[in-house]
Amino acid sequence: MSRLDEESRRRLGQVSVATLATCLFQYGLRNCVMQDVRPLNPNVTRVVGEAYTLRFIPSREDLDSMANYSRPDFLHRRAIEECPAGSVLVIDSGRRAEAGSAGDIMVTRLKARGVAGVVTDGGFRDTPDIRQLDYPAFHQAPAARSTPICLSPVDVQQPIGCGGVAVYPGDIIVGDADGIIVIPAHLASEVAEKAIGMTRYETFATEQVVKGRSILGLYPATAESREEYILWEQHGERG
Amino acid sequence: MSRLDEESRRRLGQVSVATLATCLFQYGLRNCVMQDVRPLNPNVTRVVGEAYTLRFIPSREDLDSMANYSRPDFLHRRAIEECPAGSVLVIDSGRRAEAGSAGDIMVTRLKARGVAGVVTDGGFRDTPDIRQLDYPAFHQAPAARSTPICLSPVDVQQPIGCGGVAVYPGDIIVGDADGIIVIPAHLASEVAEKAIGMTRYETFATEQVVKGRSILGLYPATAESREEYILWEQHGERG
Amino acid sequence: MSRLDEESRRRLGQVSVATLATCLFQYGLRNCVMQDVRPLNPNVTRVVGEAYTLRFIPSREDLDSMANYSRPDFLHRRAIEECPAGSVLVIDSGRRAEAGSAGDIMVTRLKARGVAGVVTDGGFRDTPDIRQLDYPAFHQAPAARSTPICLSPVDVQQPIGCGGVAVYPGDIIVGDADGIIVIPAHLASEVAEKAIGMTRYETFATEQVVKGRSILGLYPATAESREEYILWEQHGERG
Amino acid sequence: MSRLDEESRRRLGQVSVATLATCLFQYGLRNCVMQDVRPLNPNVTRVVGEAYTLRFIPSREDLDSMANYSRPDFLHRRAIEECPAGSVLVIDSGRRAEAGSAGDIMVTRLKARGVAGVVTDGGFRDTPDIRQLDYPAFHQAPAARSTPICLSPVDVQQPIGCGGVAVYPGDIIVGDADGIIVIPAHLASEVAEKAIGMTRYETFATEQVVKGRSILGLYPATAESREEYILWEQHGERG
Amino acid sequence: MSRLDEESRRRLGQVSVATLATCLFQYGLRNCVMQDVRPLNPNVTRVVGEAYTLRFIPSREDLDSMANYSRPDFLHRRAIEECPAGSVLVIDSGRRAEAGSAGDIMVTRLKARGVAGVVTDGGFRDTPDIRQLDYPAFHQAPAARSTPICLSPVDVQQPIGCGGVAVYPGDIIVGDADGIIVIPAHLASEVAEKAIGMTRYETFATEQVVKGRSILGLYPATAESREEYILWEQHGERG
Amino acid sequence: MSRLDEESRRRLGQVSVATLATCLFQYGLRNCVMQDVRPLNPNVTRVVGEAYTLRFIPSREDLDSMANYSRPDFLHRRAIEECPAGSVLVIDSGRRAEAGSAGDIMVTRLKARGVAGVVTDGGFRDTPDIRQLDYPAFHQAPAARSTPICLSPVDVQQPIGCGGVAVYPGDIIVGDADGIIVIPAHLASEVAEKAIGMTRYETFATEQVVKGRSILGLYPATAESREEYILWEQHGERG
Repeated sequence: MSRLDEESRRRLGQVSVATLATCLFQYGLRNCVMQDVRPLNPNVTRVVGEAYTLRFIPSREDLDSMANYSRPDFLHRRAIEECPAGSVLVIDSGRRAEAGSAGDIMVTRLKARGVAGVVTDGGFRDTPDIRQLDYPAFHQAPAARSTPICLSPVDVQQPIGCGGVAVYPGDIIVGDADGIIVIPAHLASEVAEKAIGMTRYETFATEQVVKGRSILGLYPATAESREEYILWEQHGERG
Repeated sequence: MSRLDEESRRRLGQVSVATLATCLFQYGLRNCVMQDVRPLNPNVTRVVGEAYTLRFIPSREDLDSMANYSRPDFLHRRAIEECPAGSVLVIDSGRRAEAGSAGDIMVTRLKARGVAGVVTDGGFRDTPDIRQLDYPAFHQAPAARSTPICLSPVDVQQPIGCGGVAVYPGDIIVGDADGIIVIPAHLASEVAEKAIGMTRYETFATEQVVKGRSILGLYPATAESREEYILWEQHGERG
Repeated sequence: MSRLDEESRRRLGQVSVATLATCLFQYGLRNCVMQDVRPLNPNVTRVVGEAYTLRFIPSREDLDSMANYSRPDFLHRRAIEECPAGSVLVIDSGRRAEAGSAGDIMVTRLKARGVAGVVTDGGFRDTPDIRQLDYPAFHQAPAARSTPICLSPVDVQQPIGCGGVAVYPGDIIVGDADGIIVIPAHLASEVAEKAIGMTRYETFATEQVVKGRSILGLYPATAESREEYILWEQHGERG
Repeated sequence: MSRLDEESRRRLGQVSVATLATCLFQYGLRNCVMQDVRPLNPNVTRVVGEAYTLRFIPSREDLDSMANYSRPDFLHRRAIEECPAGSVLVIDSGRRAEAGSAGDIMVTRLKARGVAGVVTDGGFRDTPDIRQLDYPAFHQAPAARSTPICLSPVDVQQPIGCGGVAVYPGDIIVGDADGIIVIPAHLASEVAEKAIGMTRYETFATEQVVKGRSILGLYPATAESREEYILWEQHGERG
Repeated sequence: MSRLDEESRRRLGQVSVATLATCLFQYGLRNCVMQDVRPLNPNVTRVVGEAYTLRFIPSREDLDSMANYSRPDFLHRRAIEECPAGSVLVIDSGRRAEAGSAGDIMVTRLKARGVAGVVTDGGFRDTPDIRQLDYPAFHQAPAARSTPICLSPVDVQQPIGCGGVAVYPGDIIVGDADGIIVIPAHLASEVAEKAIGMTRYETFATEQVVKGRSILGLYPATAESREEYILWEQHGERG
Repeated sequence: MSRLDEESRRRLGQVSVATLATCLFQYGLRNCVMQDVRPLNPNVTRVVGEAYTLRFIPSREDLDSMANYSRPDFLHRRAIEECPAGSVLVIDSGRRAEAGSAGDIMVTRLKARGVAGVVTDGGFRDTPDIRQLDYPAFHQAPAARSTPICLSPVDVQQPIGCGGVAVYPGDIIVGDADGIIVIPAHLASEVAEKAIGMTRYETFATEQVVKGRSILGLYPATAESREEYILWEQHGERG
């Protein structure tokens, strides 16, 4: 799995999913924001990390039961124990929230292991407890039923679809209250840098708009507004 | 666009969407509350104003790009700059939340211009920032992708559908945590007055129910309960 | 309607919907958690009680109007007045949230009568007011339109479907932030006891995981981890 | 159950569901045509008869199994055996087609007993065999799974919802390729008569349009076009 | 409205919607095929013509009734009478099939006037009669209810969305059993020519595949296979 | 991949999907019939074979283009060329029909190679041509857009979900007009034998029902009816 350099990680932690979506659109990438994937806890939404993937398929009664969870090599458990610190566990649940993609003890373990966050296009169980963890978890809706009722883990670290978006192992996951965006690994540092610049300009533009200025000639930027921005930057936002 | 008189505006700010729905049902109007349109910020839900409409259709790659936003006459921008103070910008996004109907800088501008609120049957981008604005914004779900990825503005101030409800320019929009109701312009002052009366009676009835009284003979009102209510009104709710 | 013994009620108030779902799965019951039914007020989610059922069908303009609500025997009202203290009113709205399954005055009356909570697979009206009540109410989404616009009550205390789950009068309803689970009446006390045990073990396991222990060999339990747990129990969680 | 007089039955067999929908709209009834309910066999779509209702709720593993079908009083079987000749069996399956509402042997039995047709808002099993029967059957989609996997019968001859429409026992069901309409029993003979008149006029209007005439001044009828129609009627459509 | 030259019209009548979709994808246009829009009559699916657009919004009880249809200038009627011969009437119904976008008399009139076909993202009424017309009509599903129950016409010849695709007046509509594709007007003749070439090659490739040849090195074309194709073309498909 | 013995293959070709669903339900398997997967050509629905699986994820603009199809090892092509004769190609398209899972040339190649059939939970392109092939193809709906617009192939012969059902390579696929059922490989011969017996009894029962006999005491079978059936069997269905 590709590793995100620390500077890019820091930058991506300071920019919004919306700004990143606009940035990736400039690369011709239109479909990077997951659909129907939301923060479980609206107060804990910021996450950045490399994607470590887990894939579920529908379960089958003769293969999938709670008993599987006693096997140390069971993939659902392995994913929890092997997903590296600093990464984000991204789960393809086939966009189904009829059973839980994980519960609070698993999420507690992810947090304890230093994993940066967890994302499913299904749902989590034990959401009251997960909410207490102050840990970034994104899903579609609470899903209290036991995982094997509907879901069976079949592989880790393979390409998956999650929330209608392609996720390759090592892609960079960024989340905020708008949801989750997936940045192709090879674009991550370049995009991080660009997005920081865009964000600065947006801060400038917002400040102007708050003061009563029209968005015309200001947002998106023109040559003139860009010069003003440079001055504003130099004067430490006292503009 | 018809103007809402101040007294009606004040009254509509004091009654609930549910009460207004019951009131319009008495006029035979069944389909006035938008479906799947919710407050972005659950703490900022009250809004009253005349509808100023904007219509999107699906975008097309050769026509719709970020470049359009540099044109001062681009409709998405014009709607933001021309929507009158005191009105509500209502956006027909075809009930699609795959791309943002507007972002935080546009919403900041609406607020700065004195526009009363903004409603889409799609989604907004930059929801963490919009949430900070303490401004009434209603949508279906966050939608971080750039607008031209999916949506293209084609006209303003034409009749639209929004959340499954007809909205004609100048119709009165009222919102609370239940969502958004659309009141035909010509009925607004009459409905505002009726709804104030209904709300007073509901306050009386709720007070009685809290004290342990049955809803039978009380809600809906009977001739007897109405007399009681009149006394209660006269005694300043001390009844 | 079967009555839930006090000890089981107390126990069910201390365990989570997710734990109960795992417990019922051990009995071969996979489909006990309602889909798309959520707490109206995220701060008021705990509820336990026997199901008292009300069934709606789609309304018809010539039969269903506000006038029905003046009849003391109208089923929507009767359900509110007759649902026993300590029970939960469970409403089959055909999973439709186009009109309200109940409003704030009805819910206020349920609270005043000591009914433990109210559940619909449709939506409630007057959600701002219901939210103030600090009362457990579960639904799909706010639904401000008047009930007879879409819904007509046809019977009480008959078996219903709610959120895709069978509910027989007297089944035990338990709710938390994960949603609503339906426990068959004859299993309730047995399940309550088992779930308390499971919950204790989960508390132990979580404590271990927080300390940095792997879930392997701990969750689910093994013979060894169970012995540890027994010691932990004996030492009053000081373990 | 109310009985449909023979003349009305004959008339209703000659008019379309669309014409009946327009006719009922004149009575203020907007919601009479089922949604997502289609003829299983596109060549066998005409049906008229009184509704005999059956209601399913979601099944539960401990209550619902194939074994129930050995009990002579099991409601799913009773409905098949007791639904009167000339009536239409209408099944509320909660709009779910995950399991079959009935299979070919049951439908063969309905045909043998002289029942006029069968309607579900779920799906039928054995659709290749049912298609061979030349029998009017309406559903949402084929549903091969055994009934008790998802559905449990709970009552017959109670009011139900089917395809989003209220159906009271004895209401008149009419079907064609457009789908199923439900006519309130008390309106049936009046509506049948009106619809015959409307259908005659439509035949006249269509004939005119085929000859090249504009729909303006012809459809809907004006005083002048109505006079023409009367002449056309008198001249045996030779007009 | 731009006019399609006769040669392009002829060519577009000989190529498939799938081939046109691949062709437009080469121009970067990904979203040109309508979703959930199907031929009403599976035996009559070929259509080519310029789009003439009609837009509906949700209806409102006080504005929309059958009475409107007596007004000669009512937009639903005007669209039927004014849509030019050779064009295709394309209707934005907001993807809702709860009421009919048009019925058989209107469609008969379109045919009589020489209009090439009719498309809605809602549904048609009187589908048994429309099926008899041998006329290309595309919709989502039959919708027997009267138009004003749900839909109100608000403009013609404006840009619309239909089946999730942008349609500008004068865009070229092509349909077959795969559904409807929208070709931007300015690309039509170029695309028509390209698609004819692609279709010829596909015929060659299919012939080879039927004879047992692998698709590798054949489809998509290579330099070698293209030479073979040229020979095949010269030898009149006797290859 | 496990191979299906010829006798079982023959038997499975003679029984219905509905009967197989009932048979698998006796093994506790409830979720074996795909949802929303239908025969493309209603006249060509019978298929039996071992599953050969292909998995798609959502496409990404920088990775997925038509150019990939020139690479001989591109998975979409490899699946077509490597899927064994007698097997069924089963495609996990994430239940999305926005782009084609395959087109007519690919399906022609499958037929030429002796592959028994093709199934996707998305859609096929070129459905008019595929319909001409008299070849069993199952999908959700026509999907004319080019595959890379939405779908990217990532692996073959891995476990997948298709239409909400688990499919392991080598599982047995059986299709008819009811849709597709997936039989776990290890149960196939046993289930084939049982289903033949069930089908024989159903033929007997249907014959009786056609003659006017009640389903009570006949279907499902009783000890007595089973004896009758044995006699009927012995007398060559002349009973």
